[in-house]
Amino acid sequence: MSKHWHNLITTVMMTLFLACALTMPGPSRADNREFDLTIDEMKIKVAPDLEFQVFAFNGQVPAPLIHVKEGDDVTVHVTNNTTLPHTIHWHGQYQRNNWRMDGVPGVTQKAIEPGETFTYKFKAEKTGSTWYHCHVNVSEHVGLRGMWGPLIVDPAKPTELEKKVTKDVIMMLSSWDSQYAEKLGSGGSPLDRANYFSINGKAFPLTQPIKVSKGDVVRLRLFGAGAEIHSIHTHGHDMLVTHKDGLPLPAPYYVDTLLVGPGERYDAIMTMDNPGLWMVHDHVDPQVTNNGKHGGGVMTAIVYDEVKPLFPDDPHVAPVQYDADFYYSDSMKKPYGLHNNARFKGMPLQTEGRRERRRSGHESH
Amino acid sequence: MSKHWHNLITTVMMTLFLACALTMPGPSRADNREFDLTIDEMKIKVAPDLEFQVFAFNGQVPAPLIHVKEGDDVTVHVTNNTTLPHTIHWHGQYQRNNWRMDGVPGVTQKAIEPGETFTYKFKAEKTGSTWYHCHVNVSEHVGLRGMWGPLIVDPAKPTELEKKVTKDVIMMLSSWDSQYAEKLGSGGSPLDRANYFSINGKAFPLTQPIKVSKGDVVRLRLFGAGAEIHSIHTHGHDMLVTHKDGLPLPAPYYVDTLLVGPGERYDAIMTMDNPGLWMVHDHVDPQVTNNGKHGGGVMTAIVYDEVKPLFPDDPHVAPVQYDADFYYSDSMKKPYGLHNNARFKGMPLQTEGRRERRRSGHESH
Amino acid sequence: MSKHWHNLITTVMMTLFLACALTMPGPSRADNREFDLTIDEMKIKVAPDLEFQVFAFNGQVPAPLIHVKEGDDVTVHVTNNTTLPHTIHWHGQYQRNNWRMDGVPGVTQKAIEPGETFTYKFKAEKTGSTWYHCHVNVSEHVGLRGMWGPLIVDPAKPTELEKKVTKDVIMMLSSWDSQYAEKLGSGGSPLDRANYFSINGKAFPLTQPIKVSKGDVVRLRLFGAGAEIHSIHTHGHDMLVTHKDGLPLPAPYYVDTLLVGPGERYDAIMTMDNPGLWMVHDHVDPQVTNNGKHGGGVMTAIVYDEVKPLFPDDPHVAPVQYDADFYYSDSMKKPYGLHNNARFKGMPLQTEGRRERRRSGHESH
Repeated sequence: MSKHWHNLITTVMMTLFLACALTMPGPSRADNREFDLTIDEMKIKVAPDLEFQVFAFNGQVPAPLIHVKEGDDVTVHVTNNTTLPHTIHWHGQYQRNNWRMDGVPGVTQKAIEPGETFTYKFKAEKTGSTWYHCHVNVSEHVGLRGMWGPLIVDPAKPTELEKKVTKDVIMMLSSWDSQYAEKLGSGGSPLDRANYFSINGKAFPLTQPIKVSKGDVVRLRLFGAGAEIHSIHTHGHDMLVTHKDGLPLPAPYYVDTLLVGPGERYDAIMTMDNPGLWMVHDHVDPQVTNNGKHGGGVMTAIVYDEVKPLFPDDPHVAPVQYDADFYYSDSMKKPYGLHNNARFKGMPLQTEGRRERRRSGHESH
Repeated sequence: MSKHWHNLITTVMMTLFLACALTMPGPSRADNREFDLTIDEMKIKVAPDLEFQVFAFNGQVPAPLIHVKEGDDVTVHVTNNTTLPHTIHWHGQYQRNNWRMDGVPGVTQKAIEPGETFTYKFKAEKTGSTWYHCHVNVSEHVGLRGMWGPLIVDPAKPTELEKKVTKDVIMMLSSWDSQYAEKLGSGGSPLDRANYFSINGKAFPLTQPIKVSKGDVVRLRLFGAGAEIHSIHTHGHDMLVTHKDGLPLPAPYYVDTLLVGPGERYDAIMTMDNPGLWMVHDHVDPQVTNNGKHGGGVMTAIVYDEVKPLFPDDPHVAPVQYDADFYYSDSMKKPYGLHNNARFKGMPLQTEGRRERRRSGHESH
Repeated sequence: MSKHWHNLITTVMMTLFLACALTMPGPSRADNREFDLTIDEMKIKVAPDLEFQVFAFNGQVPAPLIHVKEGDDVTVHVTNNTTLPHTIHWHGQYQRNNWRMDGVPGVTQKAIEPGETFTYKFKAEKTGSTWYHCHVNVSEHVGLRGMWGPLIVDPAKPTELEKKVTKDVIMMLSSWDSQYAEKLGSGGSPLDRANYFSINGKAFPLTQPIKVSKGDVVRLRLFGAGAEIHSIHTHGHDMLVTHKDGLPLPAPYYVDTLLVGPGERYDAIMTMDNPGLWMVHDHVDPQVTNNGKHGGGVMTAIVYDEVKPLFPDDPHVAPVQYDADFYYSDSMKKPYGLHNNARFKGMPLQTEGRRERRRSGHESH
């Protein structure tokens, strides 16, 4: 192959793509958004046989949706009610002229110690699927303790395709190692192995069906929130991958199976043109088990309203209690703001043993 | 960077790319294709020191090639001769107006119990590298027991580059955990670790050379059939990645090392313009071992006809018995149909112990 | 979606992209580059609590930078001073009409035995981020013993964006399993698990800050040199992914988190327009630990000259001894050639036990 021609064409495409560097028209108008977040020690139910102790933003895992628009000025007051230090990193946000708000303990700020409140202020400049998570002891706090939530920033100028979306489906993928379920303050070694895998903190059958109607245009927002790689397969529908880490791809492409690594986000649009019951699951085979038993983990189903199930009691179709907001679909339709979800809320932990951890002075880096 | 310009350009490209949504000219003519598949308990030789018990479609691992053209009507009668329930999911196929043929036990059908026959009927709508695999207890049946095969659907309108292909090379990548070699009905936990890695069910030196002539245009069809991620490196040749999960990419790109995750498929075209002997192998280093001993696993070589080997007895060049159809290259040149490969066939298992499994009533989900 | 239109558009794009196949204008002029490399048994310090025995090119890990331009004729004399056989594979280079220089023992050459010298001669045809590594017993030598270095080939016709780069930052990512630290000649099984993770052979806090000035255009060259997948997140800056495995992508795309698999290389350009202190780290959470203790592994920070640190003693900002060439940034500005880095050099191993290994005749495949 001729590098000469190859480079020429690439240069033309990149010049076009980068023409953007010249002017930056501001978004229509910026609003001030002010929110409160607590961090609490809670216990959540990940799977029928697994309760897990977490550090939970506003008591829930995943954390509340923060939904704003491009250019908004965001203020978040974070109060640490736990026994260990934490911060928040706004993953994806540029923090331009604002690096001390980036949330890295020992580098951009002191960690927020137990009992303290810290206020983050930043402009929501980066659009799309960004997220927020703790940056203290991430191998445990992010990898095992559920300290993450979606921060969705609507672009001032969405693409034509984005305008067609009728339903947002946010999936934060992560994993759990049951040996640390009750050992807050430990875990996260590369020698450990996760044995539970979840969407929005729940392993099948505790996940929820994705209920759609024919004609819906679903935007799947996939987040690699934990430490494992997931390979998400949608039955009956291709996904058009339009955005990576919040930003539009110059050449969107179709897939039926999408690899999502830790920290990554993919927006993938599916047109609901094929009524039926369709699995959506991790194709990393052991990640559809609960503690090694098949029929768990990262698994759910697209369920069309129009369709009468063959097996009406099947847990893909019939959850114990339906939560229409499990994928933040309802919250994404509400006015901009911070949206709690009571169904993600855990049970407060007993105080036993908490005092000892506070004394032991965990590393906060 | 200006999001405004970025989005504008992206919108233009996506509009072009999506113009396709308007009209759908049907393929020239649809044929009926009717096939029989059995599922049998067999033992295959994965590596010189590893025999593994499998559930084998038509007695072989990988399963037979099913090769049809876009729009064909496919009928497959599946008879389960094993002691456990199974189904077939046609991974990638849309099953439009046909969700009950999607092969998910408990959702789209009852599992096919031992001794039963089930008939799948569907239109081959999705083109390219699709595949079929069991959807019962996938962490074992797909992850460890070889229940997968290629379903290649030729597009009615292939791209110009596709028309130049002279040789198809299908590689289904998977892994094996020897502790379950003789324990049909178990395995697949995330706590296990594979210790053998294979192309089309064989670990080096049981793989076969990829024999080519100068001027050949090879289409590598890579399938992530098992539970591990593979990173395929081709020596001496770049691969032009043209298709993902069967569908053409809007912006094909060159690589010399390609990550393939579970469930994913990549078509990658290599022009054979560089006579020599060239390794093709997994760059996940431990995956070129057999049970930890280097010189095994996912490894083979491109061997040009024109070249006299330096080491004529080397197993990359000189397999014990050459199988020209090891990568389905010959089968892909035959008329459309289902193509068995006798060399992939295993040895039937003794019936000892089978009755007990039948009684134990394994979960079929 | 209409495959017809989809294919038509794809064909147009591919035709454009492949027009390059017609003519190949040679680069301006080829120079002869002749280098010497030894392979020595050394001990390097990977982390504060980990010294690791390696096979080191010119005594260092990573190996010296080899920096040439497209079309140069390269000669490398390799002398094996260790107790085990080795070769060099020039990963990415085509070795056109030159397959016996590809470095595969038993296929393209006999391995270089202890005490022997072998001379590689090849034309640097493939441009960009290529690399060199041993091809003997790679699951140990590449996966655990640091036998890799960068081979950067400047293209005759760089893209406009490439011309703007002011600073190259080369990161070779790999991992270590401390149980084999002192067991040269063993390790590399898929049943093992790495417990240290490094950039250029160093785990945090032994990594170095990436010092930049506002206005710099940094090209990150990420190499998957070891056996693990890494997910590199840059705070405060998006990366424009421009090249894969050395070659320009037709549709560069932005990310803030980039998955890098074994053997892969990505070039990613960042504009330094956001003064601050910004983490750069692996988002595979357990890979920012040293032996399971958080605050290690694949982690460093971008440090702007203009910025006064909040915590001047923090090891992200203040390494024990600053090495401006840790990411080969200085070497990349020197004239073409092979560039050693004294700071990557290890301590020579004692000879004890070496004679025994020499006698035991390790497999060299």
